[in-house]
Amino acid sequence: MAVTRRELITGAAAGAAGLVVGGVVGKVASDDGGGGGTSGLSGDAGDIANARGLAADDVARAVKTFVPPGKYDEYFLFCSDGHGGQILVVGVPSMRILKMIGVFTPEPWQGYGYGADWGEEVLAAGTDFKKPTSPGRGPLTWGDTHHPALSETNAEYDGRYIYINDRANGRIAMVDLRDFKTKQILDVPNLDSSHGGCFVTPNSEYVHISTMTPTLVDFNNIHGALDNYDKAFRGFSTFLKIDPNNGKMLVDESFQVELPPYTQDLADSGKLASDGWVFINSYNAEMAVGGNLEGKPSIEAGASQGDYDYMHCINWRKAEEVAKAGKTRTINGMKVISLETAVAEGLLYLLPEPRSPHGIDVSPSGTYLTVGGKLDPHVTIYHIDKLKAAVEAKDYEKIDQFGVPILKFDSVMEARIEVGAGPLHSQYDDKGHGFTSLFVESAVAKFTLGKPDYDGPQPFTLVDKLPIHYNIGHLCTMEGDTAKPDGKYLVALNKWSIDRFPPVGTLKPQNFQLVDLTGEKMDIITDMPIGMGEPHYVQGIKADKIKSWELYPPGTNPTTMEVDPNAVAAGQEAITRTGNTVTVSMTITRSRFKPDTIKVNKGDKIVMHLTNIESTPDATHGFAIPRYNVNISLDAGEYTRLEFVADVEGAFAMYCTEFCSALHLEMQGWILVS
Amino acid sequence: MAVTRRELITGAAAGAAGLVVGGVVGKVASDDGGGGGTSGLSGDAGDIANARGLAADDVARAVKTFVPPGKYDEYFLFCSDGHGGQILVVGVPSMRILKMIGVFTPEPWQGYGYGADWGEEVLAAGTDFKKPTSPGRGPLTWGDTHHPALSETNAEYDGRYIYINDRANGRIAMVDLRDFKTKQILDVPNLDSSHGGCFVTPNSEYVHISTMTPTLVDFNNIHGALDNYDKAFRGFSTFLKIDPNNGKMLVDESFQVELPPYTQDLADSGKLASDGWVFINSYNAEMAVGGNLEGKPSIEAGASQGDYDYMHCINWRKAEEVAKAGKTRTINGMKVISLETAVAEGLLYLLPEPRSPHGIDVSPSGTYLTVGGKLDPHVTIYHIDKLKAAVEAKDYEKIDQFGVPILKFDSVMEARIEVGAGPLHSQYDDKGHGFTSLFVESAVAKFTLGKPDYDGPQPFTLVDKLPIHYNIGHLCTMEGDTAKPDGKYLVALNKWSIDRFPPVGTLKPQNFQLVDLTGEKMDIITDMPIGMGEPHYVQGIKADKIKSWELYPPGTNPTTMEVDPNAVAAGQEAITRTGNTVTVSMTITRSRFKPDTIKVNKGDKIVMHLTNIESTPDATHGFAIPRYNVNISLDAGEYTRLEFVADVEGAFAMYCTEFCSALHLEMQGWILVS
Repeated sequence: MAVTRRELITGAAAGAAGLVVGGVVGKVASDDGGGGGTSGLSGDAGDIANARGLAADDVARAVKTFVPPGKYDEYFLFCSDGHGGQILVVGVPSMRILKMIGVFTPEPWQGYGYGADWGEEVLAAGTDFKKPTSPGRGPLTWGDTHHPALSETNAEYDGRYIYINDRANGRIAMVDLRDFKTKQILDVPNLDSSHGGCFVTPNSEYVHISTMTPTLVDFNNIHGALDNYDKAFRGFSTFLKIDPNNGKMLVDESFQVELPPYTQDLADSGKLASDGWVFINSYNAEMAVGGNLEGKPSIEAGASQGDYDYMHCINWRKAEEVAKAGKTRTINGMKVISLETAVAEGLLYLLPEPRSPHGIDVSPSGTYLTVGGKLDPHVTIYHIDKLKAAVEAKDYEKIDQFGVPILKFDSVMEARIEVGAGPLHSQYDDKGHGFTSLFVESAVAKFTLGKPDYDGPQPFTLVDKLPIHYNIGHLCTMEGDTAKPDGKYLVALNKWSIDRFPPVGTLKPQNFQLVDLTGEKMDIITDMPIGMGEPHYVQGIKADKIKSWELYPPGTNPTTMEVDPNAVAAGQEAITRTGNTVTVSMTITRSRFKPDTIKVNKGDKIVMHLTNIESTPDATHGFAIPRYNVNISLDAGEYTRLEFVADVEGAFAMYCTEFCSALHLEMQGWILVS
Repeated sequence: MAVTRRELITGAAAGAAGLVVGGVVGKVASDDGGGGGTSGLSGDAGDIANARGLAADDVARAVKTFVPPGKYDEYFLFCSDGHGGQILVVGVPSMRILKMIGVFTPEPWQGYGYGADWGEEVLAAGTDFKKPTSPGRGPLTWGDTHHPALSETNAEYDGRYIYINDRANGRIAMVDLRDFKTKQILDVPNLDSSHGGCFVTPNSEYVHISTMTPTLVDFNNIHGALDNYDKAFRGFSTFLKIDPNNGKMLVDESFQVELPPYTQDLADSGKLASDGWVFINSYNAEMAVGGNLEGKPSIEAGASQGDYDYMHCINWRKAEEVAKAGKTRTINGMKVISLETAVAEGLLYLLPEPRSPHGIDVSPSGTYLTVGGKLDPHVTIYHIDKLKAAVEAKDYEKIDQFGVPILKFDSVMEARIEVGAGPLHSQYDDKGHGFTSLFVESAVAKFTLGKPDYDGPQPFTLVDKLPIHYNIGHLCTMEGDTAKPDGKYLVALNKWSIDRFPPVGTLKPQNFQLVDLTGEKMDIITDMPIGMGEPHYVQGIKADKIKSWELYPPGTNPTTMEVDPNAVAAGQEAITRTGNTVTVSMTITRSRFKPDTIKVNKGDKIVMHLTNIESTPDATHGFAIPRYNVNISLDAGEYTRLEFVADVEGAFAMYCTEFCSALHLEMQGWILVS
């Protein structure tokens, strides 16, 4: 049988084509008498606009962003939501939130982390209790999602998987875009926090994640560690091998490169011209550690003393060879290429960057590396050919205290463009433009690149600037991190909304602003509040690249994406007892659980095999047990397993939590524990 | 000093007035050549509409729903999100989600349930471990939010507080709309589940919550309880006294009315003409218990046998007198009026309702009670005067097996209107219309009431019907549960979206459809996906009724909403040790923690007093400790307390999780545990 019913449903609907309904556009009457009739309008759109106080520009913006009832958006944004710990899926241009995907934080609507083995296993595996710094108290139940990375084929998003890092705890998760469920959380060895990455290499060979704050590696004198910072701490760049069959990360085939204890920051993968390289910014080359109660400068001051920090340039193909050749030490289960080996093998170089850099973004052709120095009004643009030549020629400024060669700034730099105050991140369009977020100035700057990305008369020139509201961090163009970005929309991820939305408490939403890039000047066409997290970064992908399943083949376990041997078909329902283990095989369909009555003794272990035997897309059922903190969600065809000890006496009315039918309320059963 | 800066910010902006910018509406050129110029348009809106395939009706809908960048919505929806466990705040007409409020489920963006005592205390108090059926394993960490209830003054929403019930576990929560934070979760005695309510009485004297599935009250033979159902189980209607000063529920001044073990369902408060009464539907008067593995009918079949179920009519003012007179038994800490006393005192009556009723909704004047019988194509409308007369005249059909008088259906019924298949819930506008959701038919029916709500020529007549997409549950008009509903918009809360949104996994979003009520025919003007829960019910309130604080007075503890004696001002930072307790008094501001270095011994108890000393709205800071599962969010002015045992050795880089400034990344410190 076919694995999905998607074909049946989406034939006329998916992606941009779904927007074109061939309708006739009526007129909106103007108030200067120049307008014509309004035939076909269900109301006079001009009158409506006047009554609602919409200016002419706003009418155009309304028409640009409106997705009519039942029609589809053209792009999906996959958004981190910061310390909310999840991923948000947003449609462009409507800016509607289509879904929140539970990733690092348990989420009961999806039954993620509330009893079903699928989620329990992923979340439990996501905390490595063998880590030197792991808590003994239980699994981590939140994360600080930062950088989503869609899987790629030939440096273009392929819509199969998405990865995202946990900045707080040095972890990374993988979501399978067949069912939009988290399949793996990996507590990355030797990383207590992370920032750089994640990103995938151009054919999803590896997903990369590196330390943010360096990791303590010498536990001998912890209280003195900050006085011994250059020896006690190290950074790590991690290349996690991706299983091409299921997207999972394979630690045994992965490796790390040891880095100096600078604070590694944003990172990006080379592609095309720069294929085989990755680039990681850093700040705090000063290695400031604070101590403000004792009168020393705070880190914010101490880390901003120097004129330059360093981009880390890693030749990952060479690193892969070195790792395969066994020139590694295994530390906490991970193969590590030491700093000495990395230098000796010529796979790690530093490149000076002006004043506290933040973003590093590789241009579509792979030729240019754009860096925003957040205390410098310029973006600095490096040329990959110059970088390669400097490496070849050993054109070093000096060697840093950890033995790593520092390339000459002037030899690699291609251009500096004055864009404004507080440049952070850059994205690109399909016409050779770069767009840089200006945090301090609250603006987006648009500039030209050089050849081959831009072939016009004015390379490396600022061409437009747009005020945003307020405090922009990242920004995102559609397909923006690929070799073929689209030039239609840009999303500004603004950290503060201040007065842009009505007051909804002392904690205010963030503000996504959708920017139209098709005109000569950039134009903000809508504001979107995000009041459920603080998205750091997003990636935008053409919606029709996502080939989601509509339902599961009967009895599929989402952990394996295979039919489970314990799946229950109609007629196979049973309750059996072995010792004090009671095994329940249950089918679930509108509007009943079968069996619907379960009698057990207090202290029994209950193992439930639950199968939603529906074959209709959207026929999800929930399964909740009051007072037991159990809530499971089973989509049509889904199998899952639940295990718990019946340690509390009583009569518990298990019920369906999804309003599934007219007799949904009657979809109930009893667990009697005595 | 003034407690908020709202005046400074919202002077020109709050509510509907903020939409009127006095702009000139330009023309949208039509494709028939009749359009005029497009001066002032940033693009040709007509060309844009054509290019995007928008039909004329869709242009009107776009103009009706668009809220320009920086402008405000006219209404707020406060939405349950079902087993997501939270509340969503949505703007109307833009249908943008302004905020998710953490209620029953820990939520790390708000730092709710991740260490800060504010949230830890609320969540911990939300599980009563003394309940006969409470789990021993830890606090409940999710809920099934169903019915939000805004506080009222004179039967109108006053914008002060909102209550919401947990259907799964018989709990209720209160959110303070000054800061949009959950202040109380009450594990209601004698309720293991809940459905009826919650709602408030017209001057917020009480908030009401009743059982859904009846509660086991006889623990002597639990395995035999279902065979003894009429004796072993009971329902309870709960009136929780509201503290007028802070909105909290006071158990000592509350009471319950014991009910028969029918399955109590939706409920509503009387108002004006019906002031002093509450009404609770029920189904399963058959008291079916299932047993389908043994060949007995499932509950869905067993509970649908009878032609009538019963509305429970409770005279709560009389019940209050009875409770105050001490005619109660205290069960599990709650005063309970027994069934016998309720009958003897004449405060409880049953009223027949056709075939498995679901919704009961009192009309704006309080005169009519509209009931949808989900297996009956009619809505049944009762008249409060007839009900009172029947009570007065003891006009009983019979007495049920629990001794409760059943009023005569024909004596109380005013009208039956054939609306279509599967009527559930009703709402009202300002013109005497009712709107009923039709689950099976996937439609909304519009009908007229009688006097005084409707004063026209055709009372109790079906006047319009609108197909929706798909499987509508509740519906909501703006200010819809008050004595003065607005007639502008209706929101259809649809359970299935099927093909209305692009596929985002096997679990599909719900679909809110915004319906324009201002025309002769109802018109769907936008679809809104809800992919983060399954909202059951929402209430819509005028946005300018919400008087949210912009920030806290310096050092405010959100638990008490008072300045905390432990709040830390600049200059008061300190680290002190008493035995193995280390007390840290920390200030937090852009871009530093002070102190930024904390050295403790393994096993020390750490008590942190944290104060965000910012005085700028939106200047929220986070405070996370990697590997310790701690994440706290402090809004400008906020104080909170954190306590944990430093049980893991290492160097932990505590950091700010909210991107607060250009040097946010440098906002970091160290906790060294050795």
